[in-house]
Amino acid sequence: MKIDTLTIVGVGLIGGSIGLAAKKRGVARRVLGVGRHAASLERARQLGAIDEPFMDVQAADLIVLCTPVDTIFDHALAADIASKPGTLLTDVGSTKGMVHDLELVLRRARYVGSHPLAGSEKSGVEFADANLFQDRLTVVTQTPATNVDAVEQVCAFWRALGSRVRIMGPVEHDAALAFTSHLPHVVAAALAATLWAEDRELAATGFRDTTRVASGDPSIWKGILLQNRAAILTALDQFSDRLAEFRKAIEASDASAIDELLTKAKKVRDALGASASPRRD
Amino acid sequence: MKIDTLTIVGVGLIGGSIGLAAKKRGVARRVLGVGRHAASLERARQLGAIDEPFMDVQAADLIVLCTPVDTIFDHALAADIASKPGTLLTDVGSTKGMVHDLELVLRRARYVGSHPLAGSEKSGVEFADANLFQDRLTVVTQTPATNVDAVEQVCAFWRALGSRVRIMGPVEHDAALAFTSHLPHVVAAALAATLWAEDRELAATGFRDTTRVASGDPSIWKGILLQNRAAILTALDQFSDRLAEFRKAIEASDASAIDELLTKAKKVRDALGASASPRRD
Repeated sequence: MKIDTLTIVGVGLIGGSIGLAAKKRGVARRVLGVGRHAASLERARQLGAIDEPFMDVQAADLIVLCTPVDTIFDHALAADIASKPGTLLTDVGSTKGMVHDLELVLRRARYVGSHPLAGSEKSGVEFADANLFQDRLTVVTQTPATNVDAVEQVCAFWRALGSRVRIMGPVEHDAALAFTSHLPHVVAAALAATLWAEDRELAATGFRDTTRVASGDPSIWKGILLQNRAAILTALDQFSDRLAEFRKAIEASDASAIDELLTKAKKVRDALGASASPRRD
Repeated sequence: MKIDTLTIVGVGLIGGSIGLAAKKRGVARRVLGVGRHAASLERARQLGAIDEPFMDVQAADLIVLCTPVDTIFDHALAADIASKPGTLLTDVGSTKGMVHDLELVLRRARYVGSHPLAGSEKSGVEFADANLFQDRLTVVTQTPATNVDAVEQVCAFWRALGSRVRIMGPVEHDAALAFTSHLPHVVAAALAATLWAEDRELAATGFRDTTRVASGDPSIWKGILLQNRAAILTALDQFSDRLAEFRKAIEASDASAIDELLTKAKKVRDALGASASPRRD
């Protein structure tokens, strides 16, 4: 996989990490960064995440959109206008269902969805990391309308950055991520909201880890929760059912029911193994 | 603070860490370990967490009970029988309300409650760490019936192991810990229980951190949930109210309400800072 010009739209933690990884691994000859703020693009250039900063999308062989999910559609339309025919266009958003409607409207670019399961509650190019995708999973999404060659090239791109790749349909992706990512975010945020300031000193590692993702950027997560609304409501209801089982067992002081619920949960969690990456905070 | 004989009942992650810290810092001349399993006491001896293993409580100047909370009362009675008059007796349990009833029944030992806010989802002396209490908080609990000198000595012990100390009443402790520790455990376990095996690969760092504590030992946590039942039910209800606010905002696709809830949660979580200790898993 060797790209001549890679254009990254939105050079924050993820976009910056793509730039650093692409340059470190020789995946792209040059990396252009696009963003609204000249100062943060300049910082990205100084950190080596991009070669040149631009305020508008430039022609490229591969354009990766790394902006909040609720802006991807518009950025994709703008990128399409600036594209050479056949340009590869992908994004890194956490929701995929609505974005695939792009396939109906793009005129030059060939769109494939991507979702690298990597990141952090941190944001900004200062936290970008050339090894962010190393040994992590990237979901690549396609529909019957997606160009098959484009899917292969986008998969090859993520593999070249060190990632494993799994191909899914966008609806299937959104249904699963509602449980594995969006639900935990809502739960962590609701849990954080229960903490009183005077109890802060009593919140140890358990509370801190359970709520860590609640530090994520609200402007990114708002779009995710809105775009994957139906699947997240389903996940919330299933979670509430599980929580109600615990409440019932505790209220009844039912030791064997509590033990059974805790043991089942431990089995699921143990099967996941330790966290996939070194702690980033 | 210099103890002649320190006896640790239950030499697992916490008990073993107390032994290692006490020996490393010269807090005790000798450390005795008490437990049901000769093999694990021998392992504790090999790791340097204790000097000598015993199957029954031995006379000591300070006895620290590090067994599950639902066994502490009985172990305390046994320790009392083996004690010299005035022996200091404390425990490290996560619930304190019921344990303080000990003050009514002990005949020789002077009881003070302790709860070091340190630990891990891991268990066993293999994970013991001489620096586990360094710069962490230990809550020491007292009631009007508690011996004031004994409180001072137990506080001095924890400070000698590197810990900060905060004195609280047992009821106040249990009400706060229901929110900062017991609720997160139940929430993490209920969340883990929503994960389907086929989605495991899609559970990244966010899911893993949010559910980490669900790997904790069910036999320890069952006792905690039973002993702090009323306060945990209150915490669960407050959490459910916060979660219902999120559900309502998502269902209504109310962007500004979602943004407000996420921003409030982020503010609370950011105020806690990063996790207090290096990741242990």
